[in-house]
Amino acid sequence: MSERLVVIGGDAAGMSAASQARRLKGPDELEIVAFERGHFTSFSACGIPYWVGGDVAGRDELIARSPEEHRARDIDLRMRTEVTELDVEGRRVRARDLESGEESWTAYDKLVIATGARPIRPPLPGIDAPGVHGVQTLDDGQALLDTLEATRGERAVVVGAGYIGVEMAEALCKRGYTVTVVNRGAQPMSTLDPDMGRMVNDAMTGLGMEMVNDAEVTKILTGEDGRVRAVATENAEYPADVVVLGVGVRPETELARAAGLPLGQHGGLLTDLAMRVRGHENIWAGGDCVEVLDLVSGRERHIALGTHANKHGQIIGSGVGGDYGTFPGVVGTAVSKVCDLEIARTGLREKDAQAAGLQYETVTIESTSRAGYYPGAAVMTVKMLAERRTGRLLGVQIVGREGAGKRVDIAAVALTTRMTVEQMTALDLGYAPPFSPVWDPVLVAARKAVAAVRKGG
Amino acid sequence: MSERLVVIGGDAAGMSAASQARRLKGPDELEIVAFERGHFTSFSACGIPYWVGGDVAGRDELIARSPEEHRARDIDLRMRTEVTELDVEGRRVRARDLESGEESWTAYDKLVIATGARPIRPPLPGIDAPGVHGVQTLDDGQALLDTLEATRGERAVVVGAGYIGVEMAEALCKRGYTVTVVNRGAQPMSTLDPDMGRMVNDAMTGLGMEMVNDAEVTKILTGEDGRVRAVATENAEYPADVVVLGVGVRPETELARAAGLPLGQHGGLLTDLAMRVRGHENIWAGGDCVEVLDLVSGRERHIALGTHANKHGQIIGSGVGGDYGTFPGVVGTAVSKVCDLEIARTGLREKDAQAAGLQYETVTIESTSRAGYYPGAAVMTVKMLAERRTGRLLGVQIVGREGAGKRVDIAAVALTTRMTVEQMTALDLGYAPPFSPVWDPVLVAARKAVAAVRKGG
Repeated sequence: MSERLVVIGGDAAGMSAASQARRLKGPDELEIVAFERGHFTSFSACGIPYWVGGDVAGRDELIARSPEEHRARDIDLRMRTEVTELDVEGRRVRARDLESGEESWTAYDKLVIATGARPIRPPLPGIDAPGVHGVQTLDDGQALLDTLEATRGERAVVVGAGYIGVEMAEALCKRGYTVTVVNRGAQPMSTLDPDMGRMVNDAMTGLGMEMVNDAEVTKILTGEDGRVRAVATENAEYPADVVVLGVGVRPETELARAAGLPLGQHGGLLTDLAMRVRGHENIWAGGDCVEVLDLVSGRERHIALGTHANKHGQIIGSGVGGDYGTFPGVVGTAVSKVCDLEIARTGLREKDAQAAGLQYETVTIESTSRAGYYPGAAVMTVKMLAERRTGRLLGVQIVGREGAGKRVDIAAVALTTRMTVEQMTALDLGYAPPFSPVWDPVLVAARKAVAAVRKGG
Repeated sequence: MSERLVVIGGDAAGMSAASQARRLKGPDELEIVAFERGHFTSFSACGIPYWVGGDVAGRDELIARSPEEHRARDIDLRMRTEVTELDVEGRRVRARDLESGEESWTAYDKLVIATGARPIRPPLPGIDAPGVHGVQTLDDGQALLDTLEATRGERAVVVGAGYIGVEMAEALCKRGYTVTVVNRGAQPMSTLDPDMGRMVNDAMTGLGMEMVNDAEVTKILTGEDGRVRAVATENAEYPADVVVLGVGVRPETELARAAGLPLGQHGGLLTDLAMRVRGHENIWAGGDCVEVLDLVSGRERHIALGTHANKHGQIIGSGVGGDYGTFPGVVGTAVSKVCDLEIARTGLREKDAQAAGLQYETVTIESTSRAGYYPGAAVMTVKMLAERRTGRLLGVQIVGREGAGKRVDIAAVALTTRMTVEQMTALDLGYAPPFSPVWDPVLVAARKAVAAVRKGG
């Protein structure tokens, strides 16, 4: 007897799930219907800044798999079709064709919710003016590029200084814009501790960007043509030919909320380890619309990141297809760059550790990416948090140049396996002068952390 | 009451030990006497190929700490002084001043043996001819550079194709030499499995190097001036203006052997976890003269590598100074490069796994260093070994371009903590398009390994 799987959302989590389920079960056993309200499937939202900045030639390069490719695998993919209601009791979804406006119900045996995240759009006067852009979807990216082409302006304001904000600041610099970053926090990258964020701030200033911190945007000012002309804060106005919003995202869970599915503190769906929505054996959820377990703090977090979405999809597809897999959780690893500045973090910041009730020691060291005498050796700063007494690694933050960012992976594995900083000092990491000093910077930090833990008592 | 520590060997392990001991105990408590037969202390032998190749400006850059700097820390360092006899019973060493020829005994309370490794010099006709060089010490490096300057030749033959061999091949290429690598094995880099070594072979050929594999050098041919003119194998002669030997090293343990200290299968000193020579509470040994525990196979190995020597020195110095630390062992991580080709390995090769009695599955995948659409994304090949049934990670080998080598650290930490490949698939590694595809290449390999383990039964 054939079952029907319905997938809501045609991006990384949803389509990975559909593809993996299809690998495990053929069309005779499992019918797969997927709804996507946008124009694209399986695209790399993380790649948009590089497309806008000109590093990536075109939009199509960011599409991992097109609707046609999915359909060729016997997935009944309905584009530009939005699911407007979920009837959990009746095991069906109502979907509206956004072109024709027609609505209809589709029954399911199994359901995957992969509705993603919604960019935060503060309800400011002027926020909808032409020239103000989000960068969440490929359509957003195209609209921004169209604006850049049409206006050929000189001044850009980026609102927000998280990953998207700093990456878009780089992209607009590369396009020749004079860039101002207006940021609510005291320094950019609130995913780092303030001392490390301050280093990013100074590097961005050094790159010629104007950093306006501790600043709340109060309105978007428009010209006589109705287009954006400036961004206003309480204290000042920043002229802008284009404005990019990068103020974060929230889980897109209105549908789930209306259907009574369990949501967490951050508004994301709550699942079990197999990514099934808690209390619902035939409903899975993954990607940017769920909360994930932080393995270091033991608390739920919301992290919108393609790499997690792909892993979720893989696990979900396995479960739907009758196989087995779990997503144990995250340690909160992220890496980014602004021009040649690499920024990475994993685990807990100081305030996360405090919120989790953990006592800790912190150390910060400077070292280099290669042996100091080797050409291209670049300075990097590594901050490390270790639990008081136990010495368990709690977090690592790295700011540096080439070779800095991916070193965070060493700490990510160590966090996952709950290593102590003392255990880390003995790690057998790859050493040769073109690749590392004889003590890898992460080990230098670990050694100093051992001393801090011992001294801390 | 003051004690005396005697250190035999003034390089990484010995001088790290001396320095760490000094940090913990002042000159009133601990007298430190160190003997070094060469002209230099604490130098980076690993850096010699880059000095010869011109990447590193001068010899002094490779010296981490000079004799004067050590002496300034109250270490009685005796240069050009060779320890010729160790009297364990009498707790004393006999040393010869290599300049004056004078010998005398020095008593010790505690002893550190850090005599390093000796390059293998096959007893071939002509091996001592001018123009034939090892590259173990800074003196060796200087002699080779002097030869390169003096002869300004065109053809170089490198004997051996391990780390030193391939790095010297690169160095000589950079110097403008036409390079032939004569290698006993079927492919270079015997620290890799043959399939991965073959990739290195092909890349080196692509770089314009002549690779002569399966070839045993039978003699070094000299010209009328007595200088080297060619390297002969059973089948052919390879003209050479200069010959570099890179055929490996052996632990330098004649002194220890004569004194009756315990040596292992590979000729290295055997120690406990605190790096004390087994059965001798007041004698420590570390660096290239000891054998280390391979945490994956549970067997002893000999690995000559500066990063281990530094760690040993740190542990030894702590022990000598009355503090505590252990060196738990290695997983066999190594990284190297030939021009832009990066080569890395950790854990067991297939033949190591077989020798250890382990049954395993292997997988090999191709992926890229960055998101496929991001500029500079370079192909890399990752081979992974996982134990049959348990799925425990046993080893990883990587060959690729920029961004390939240091990814081995992910596997090094996973090996240390005995992760399974299934656990690895959930690792939260740094992802952003300039740094990694959405599935890091190591995770792609882990996923495939999971499938192989399941299929293998």
